Amino acid sequence: MLTGKNYIGLNLSGTGTTTFQSINPSSGESLATVFFEATQEEVDQACVLAETAFPLFQSTSIGERANFLVAIAEEIDASMELEEMYCLESGLDTTRFRVERSRTTNQLRSFADHIQKGYWLEASIDTAQSNNGLQQDLRRCMEGIGPVVVFGASNFPLAYSTAGGDTASALAAGCPVIVKSHPMHPGTGELVAQAIIRAAKRTNMPEGVFSNLNSLSFTTGQKLVQHPSVKAVGFTGSYSGGKALFDLSVRRDEPIPFFAEMGSLNPVFLSKQAQSLNSEELAEKLAISITNDAGQFCTKPGLIFIEACIDSEEFINSLGEHIMAKTNKTMLGAGILNNFRRTSSDLVKLGTEAFVRESTDKGHGTNTLLVVNGNDFLSNPQMHEEVFGPFSIVVLCSEIGMIHKCVRSLKGQLTGTIHCEKEEIEKYKGLFELVRQKSGRMIYNGVPTGVRVCGSMTHGGPFPASTDPRFTAVGVDAMRRFLRPVSYQNYPDILLPDCLKDKNILSIPRRINGEMNNYSDVQKNGE
Amino acid sequence: MLTGKNYIGLNLSGTGTTTFQSINPSSGESLATVFFEATQEEVDQACVLAETAFPLFQSTSIGERANFLVAIAEEIDASMELEEMYCLESGLDTTRFRVERSRTTNQLRSFADHIQKGYWLEASIDTAQSNNGLQQDLRRCMEGIGPVVVFGASNFPLAYSTAGGDTASALAAGCPVIVKSHPMHPGTGELVAQAIIRAAKRTNMPEGVFSNLNSLSFTTGQKLVQHPSVKAVGFTGSYSGGKALFDLSVRRDEPIPFFAEMGSLNPVFLSKQAQSLNSEELAEKLAISITNDAGQFCTKPGLIFIEACIDSEEFINSLGEHIMAKTNKTMLGAGILNNFRRTSSDLVKLGTEAFVRESTDKGHGTNTLLVVNGNDFLSNPQMHEEVFGPFSIVVLCSEIGMIHKCVRSLKGQLTGTIHCEKEEIEKYKGLFELVRQKSGRMIYNGVPTGVRVCGSMTHGGPFPASTDPRFTAVGVDAMRRFLRPVSYQNYPDILLPDCLKDKNILSIPRRINGEMNNYSDVQKNGE
Repeated sequence: MLTGKNYIGLNLSGTGTTTFQSINPSSGESLATVFFEATQEEVDQACVLAETAFPLFQSTSIGERANFLVAIAEEIDASMELEEMYCLESGLDTTRFRVERSRTTNQLRSFADHIQKGYWLEASIDTAQSNNGLQQDLRRCMEGIGPVVVFGASNFPLAYSTAGGDTASALAAGCPVIVKSHPMHPGTGELVAQAIIRAAKRTNMPEGVFSNLNSLSFTTGQKLVQHPSVKAVGFTGSYSGGKALFDLSVRRDEPIPFFAEMGSLNPVFLSKQAQSLNSEELAEKLAISITNDAGQFCTKPGLIFIEACIDSEEFINSLGEHIMAKTNKTMLGAGILNNFRRTSSDLVKLGTEAFVRESTDKGHGTNTLLVVNGNDFLSNPQMHEEVFGPFSIVVLCSEIGMIHKCVRSLKGQLTGTIHCEKEEIEKYKGLFELVRQKSGRMIYNGVPTGVRVCGSMTHGGPFPASTDPRFTAVGVDAMRRFLRPVSYQNYPDILLPDCLKDKNILSIPRRINGEMNNYSDVQKNGE
Repeated sequence: MLTGKNYIGLNLSGTGTTTFQSINPSSGESLATVFFEATQEEVDQACVLAETAFPLFQSTSIGERANFLVAIAEEIDASMELEEMYCLESGLDTTRFRVERSRTTNQLRSFADHIQKGYWLEASIDTAQSNNGLQQDLRRCMEGIGPVVVFGASNFPLAYSTAGGDTASALAAGCPVIVKSHPMHPGTGELVAQAIIRAAKRTNMPEGVFSNLNSLSFTTGQKLVQHPSVKAVGFTGSYSGGKALFDLSVRRDEPIPFFAEMGSLNPVFLSKQAQSLNSEELAEKLAISITNDAGQFCTKPGLIFIEACIDSEEFINSLGEHIMAKTNKTMLGAGILNNFRRTSSDLVKLGTEAFVRESTDKGHGTNTLLVVNGNDFLSNPQMHEEVFGPFSIVVLCSEIGMIHKCVRSLKGQLTGTIHCEKEEIEKYKGLFELVRQKSGRMIYNGVPTGVRVCGSMTHGGPFPASTDPRFTAVGVDAMRRFLRPVSYQNYPDILLPDCLKDKNILSIPRRINGEMNNYSDVQKNGE
């Protein structure tokens, strides 16, 4: 049952006068529930409540926090209304819903597993040494940074939203979360928020560990990142939105860490042989990667660099035909669709050739492949910006030197993909190196879509792919965005966090006097 | 032999027309060497050279990098001119020189040891699983972020300067370093730069791995942090300097990570019993910590909160007398001294009582202890700012509630210290928790000065103690400021970094399919 209200801890609140409804992008019609935009007062309440909850949440055991994460996954899996609402609000289909839900709940469970292994605590103990003069016993572990605000993405109403990777990693780190619910799927957001609240109650989490605020306007997000109780932000979305909030976060009296994943062009490079061997299969794979779910993935390949050769014309035609053969799909919402139409049709005018699958359905994106040459690409800054939707640009380069020039002109990317045969690797070594310097994840002979949730994933990259290339938004190490080290000097055992006490009561790996993964208890000199 | 020139890789350059000399703070006289302020062109040269050196430096082996770090330590130890120049430029004595030099060279050696253990690579491998559908083999490791600019501190001409912790951790991470030499010790800086250059030659490091630029003005630093080739910054110094450069770093077209350690007030809390038992010993320890080397430590205790009791008056008098009994010392330079005199004498007017050891020597700081009450502290924002020098404020609080109020009003701190007997811990639990939330390092019954260089050290903390509480500037994990994760998907073995190849040729700990510290080779399904 949707209420349209804000969840401020356990309290339902809708005191504002501004309301909005979400829209079914397939029909263009408003959905029934009326959502209450959070007021300044409600923002304050949620933030102060999170600040109050923080020390209580930090003092829960790792096992209790793991139970909470698993309970959220269970409650999401058990929610009967979620599938219909997800599809209604996003225009995405039930197959996608099931994939995304399982990804979301598996992600929550993977954090629950991970935190119990204890590595993330980075427990480190240096006992007082008789020869260091200082006689300091020094111990360190990682602790939550404080309340975290999460901005979900339009294109992943579950996996990068209310209970997505940012929320999961913040809760795993012991940080209360305030979600700024996405205005394109506030109903899905409320259902997931209900699941989180039920899980919090079931596992006795402190009041204020989670809040969910509705907002159609930008101002609620602006208020949230500027609130003094908030200590970090996780954001997934557009460059314009992310950069504006980043600027506010770093200009606060107390600047705070702001991690945004803001998308990318995900350049793909095709060697001469890649265009000749298995070219049909490659064209089909790329076409799917570009058009699947209307190309609304941050890892959609938006640039395809081709080293011109005898097979290039045929390959480009084949790719264009594969893309035109894919059905156009409903886009997430009118704003995104209009933006897509405007930018893609502007760009099409600049190309030498374009493959466009026109559509009469008003909610659909139009699958588009544009062809330009290297000089066109270098001289058109618009081609260096992500086009969110089923659109990609082939950049036909006369020779490898031109490809290098184009890569040097690129900004930071989530991914970089190179297709070549093994015997061509030596020839392309410089390219591999150049692309790596710009990317968070490198892919060999594959497509960048399909972000595997595992510990080896880097979902992030140099600016503007993310605001900080030192972190990932996906995988268990995403927690690190919300953790800080705290050291304890000559602390009595009774005051130390459990992970740092002499006796290794949590049975976790620790670094003791520089020796890693030492599971033993601490033996102190002369005690 | 000093040249006064800029070291741009192996090239000595002094093309500018602006020059300056360093000053002996004991005599007020200028030292002989004339230093050439780096020009815009020289800044560009150093940055572009560092960018060119970056991939070459990244491709050196870990052993080669370790040899480079050890060679720097050896060259510093072997430098015959260093001691005299250090003392002349800083006013610090030879005992301090020897302690700081050994700290600096031990630090370099500790990074050399650490990188060879391989943990910092965070090598992680998730092999393709037949049941994950995606068939992705995904591997990740940490790599250098790119060229790093280092701003050294006035108060540690060796350990936090040219070859200090920031430089050592950046070089350990495989990042070329450009040092903005500190204008108060450019001679010491040049001698250390020479040592680094000699070490780089001896160990065949790429040209441009290190540059050292002279500068008296702020503009050289501003140019450096804004240069597009620079990818991260390490800074140790004042809030005003650090914050101004932070603002420039985050306002670039490509914002970059900027880590500044900007000092702190390092509050100390004394329970009732702490004022009664061993009070003489405690007063002496605190007096040394406040006045040693003219109190010019970022961890100097600048605030001493006292819960008023029958012994408070006696304790405060005793502490004041101990501080007045310490000899006033030469401060690092005229600017710092004048700033100290102005701020400390302004503050003295606001207190109820002050202990001041007056001095006739013009280069000396005046040891000062000010006494105020809790309400004075809460209402005077000046008392919440660091006074760099031999100065501390006793805040006498009528009761623990007032102490809590004062702590809540504090900004972020490098350290927080609590003195109490074991049986008082329960009573002060709330205080321990409150102070921890504001601090990077907690100390029980000790003093905050004396930063042990070890893996368990956190030298950093919530803003403004540092610009990012998720990192430390001291200890081997300081490297993490300059590392980013890069993932490789379905990469052929030949293209993978050594640490991620199937065969564990570096014999390092790796995470394989979620299992940590797995030293084995990778077994792939069906291969």
